[in-house]
Amino acid sequence: MPLAEKSLIARIRRQTINQRGILTGIGDDCAVLRIPPGHETLLTTDFSLEGVHFRHNWHPAESVGHRCLTRGLSDIAAMGGQPIAAFLSLAVPRNLPQKWVDEFIRGLLTLARKFHVGLAGGDTAESPGGVLADIIVLGSVPKGTAILRSGARPGDRVYVSGHLGGSAGALQRMLDKPKRKLHPRHFSRHFFPEPRIEVGRILREKNIASAMIDISDGLSTDLTHLCEESGVGAQVQAEAIPLASIGKPSRKVDLQFALHGGDDYELLFTAPPGKLVPRIIGGVAIAQIGHITRGKRIYLIDQKGEAVELLPQGWEHFKSLSS
Amino acid sequence: MPLAEKSLIARIRRQTINQRGILTGIGDDCAVLRIPPGHETLLTTDFSLEGVHFRHNWHPAESVGHRCLTRGLSDIAAMGGQPIAAFLSLAVPRNLPQKWVDEFIRGLLTLARKFHVGLAGGDTAESPGGVLADIIVLGSVPKGTAILRSGARPGDRVYVSGHLGGSAGALQRMLDKPKRKLHPRHFSRHFFPEPRIEVGRILREKNIASAMIDISDGLSTDLTHLCEESGVGAQVQAEAIPLASIGKPSRKVDLQFALHGGDDYELLFTAPPGKLVPRIIGGVAIAQIGHITRGKRIYLIDQKGEAVELLPQGWEHFKSLSS
Repeated sequence: MPLAEKSLIARIRRQTINQRGILTGIGDDCAVLRIPPGHETLLTTDFSLEGVHFRHNWHPAESVGHRCLTRGLSDIAAMGGQPIAAFLSLAVPRNLPQKWVDEFIRGLLTLARKFHVGLAGGDTAESPGGVLADIIVLGSVPKGTAILRSGARPGDRVYVSGHLGGSAGALQRMLDKPKRKLHPRHFSRHFFPEPRIEVGRILREKNIASAMIDISDGLSTDLTHLCEESGVGAQVQAEAIPLASIGKPSRKVDLQFALHGGDDYELLFTAPPGKLVPRIIGGVAIAQIGHITRGKRIYLIDQKGEAVELLPQGWEHFKSLSS
Repeated sequence: MPLAEKSLIARIRRQTINQRGILTGIGDDCAVLRIPPGHETLLTTDFSLEGVHFRHNWHPAESVGHRCLTRGLSDIAAMGGQPIAAFLSLAVPRNLPQKWVDEFIRGLLTLARKFHVGLAGGDTAESPGGVLADIIVLGSVPKGTAILRSGARPGDRVYVSGHLGGSAGALQRMLDKPKRKLHPRHFSRHFFPEPRIEVGRILREKNIASAMIDISDGLSTDLTHLCEESGVGAQVQAEAIPLASIGKPSRKVDLQFALHGGDDYELLFTAPPGKLVPRIIGGVAIAQIGHITRGKRIYLIDQKGEAVELLPQGWEHFKSLSS
């Protein structure tokens, strides 16, 4: 193990917050964890690769660390679960400044603390090229209550949390003017997206959602996933889709970003027609955008009432981000 | 998502064996798993990076898949645990032949089936360079019985399973003659190492081991880890170390490979002096190689009875494997 790796492990170990649920953390062959009695275990893994999911010259290290963990936490949120512990596999090139790693870890741990998630283990290696991170988040949910993608039924209403397209809108500005740095504060949904843990938890506790997925690949792609797993179709009203506002002065993004832009980490869920769905859940606006249909296709209804088929055109990170 | 990725997920999903413990596998935001009542959860993550942990022209894809999962299973073995499910994050370059991915998955799933481990999820991405895999293995152990690195006490005996140095010995032959391909059958401990799940389980059930670690970085490095976590030292008899035999005709490896060579995936454990330790456990030879001391240092005693300090010189994959 090279010194850089050793010091990385020592640094993570020092900064790690141990917490309820983590019996043995970093420093053994495995982490040992306790799942609350009567709960099932949730597990998700997500890559964050330089040149694919982020660019060194566009994304501050702190943002990369924050986004890395958000990817995992958002998957836990989409099941209505509670996160318990995160694991980080991190490979860095030999010549990467220590400061970059420090700020990456700081971004990741700041978000972890906010959700009482301990960093309980992982792996380190020297990268053959670029920063390679894989985040694993383990969580739990009371037995039999996980909200799956497969529970949507014809007639169910379709909802989203928050506003869509803000992350892709920021990315487009960087693609348009690669040399101009964006200020993370004015594009926070791109640089520091908030996983909707609280929204997911309330939807589960109040037994509101029949199916749920997080919007990481874009509304058109993730709604397709949900419909495929449920064996249904959907109709979405274009004018009902909540558009994100970005920049300074702030401007609403184009519908295309809200339809196809990834990395929003909002929740997309369905609820039976009789179910009362609050307009605000956990401080986040909830919008009804359409309903589930018996057919297998998804249609977008425009302002004139005309329907066009909505095909998955999820934001393909690597196509935009890598040359 | 590019077609190659989509087909990869579909392929894994088709080939995946679902099993007890996995309630929801591939195809949702998270896997949902059930840990047996009265058990704690074990989790481990390990990279397998091209040019760092393996070389495309030396290691058949099937071996890369097998070794990838072995890294995770071996960590579960080292806690005395039972593996339940594996998760694979896999990024491959766009131009990688589909056949390579198929054989990688085959190698991984063949080993998974042997230990009744389901592939329950993961992530896929296009790699900016080389094959990047991160394996996550989740397992369980009855409450309070996980065998930690930190339990060794002065006077405890030190043991290893199997024979050491076989993997590093094979690697050295490839480094010496980079163009000659080794036959995996004659160097099986390198190409298809067997994780010692059964040995670990028996050591836990019979309450034999006071501390345990798997030998992935080399005896000198992993014994140092165990001693550091336990706050002790050790004496090791050079002539007691079981040397692996490799090649055809088979020859014993040099002591240096057994002392410092990584990737053997044998178990290194300690047991109190009064404890009866069988010479064979789960079909695997067990050898006593030394004992734990009160001091913090580790000494190697040669045939003449002379002691030299044994410093961690674990096999550094990337130094040998990458140019």
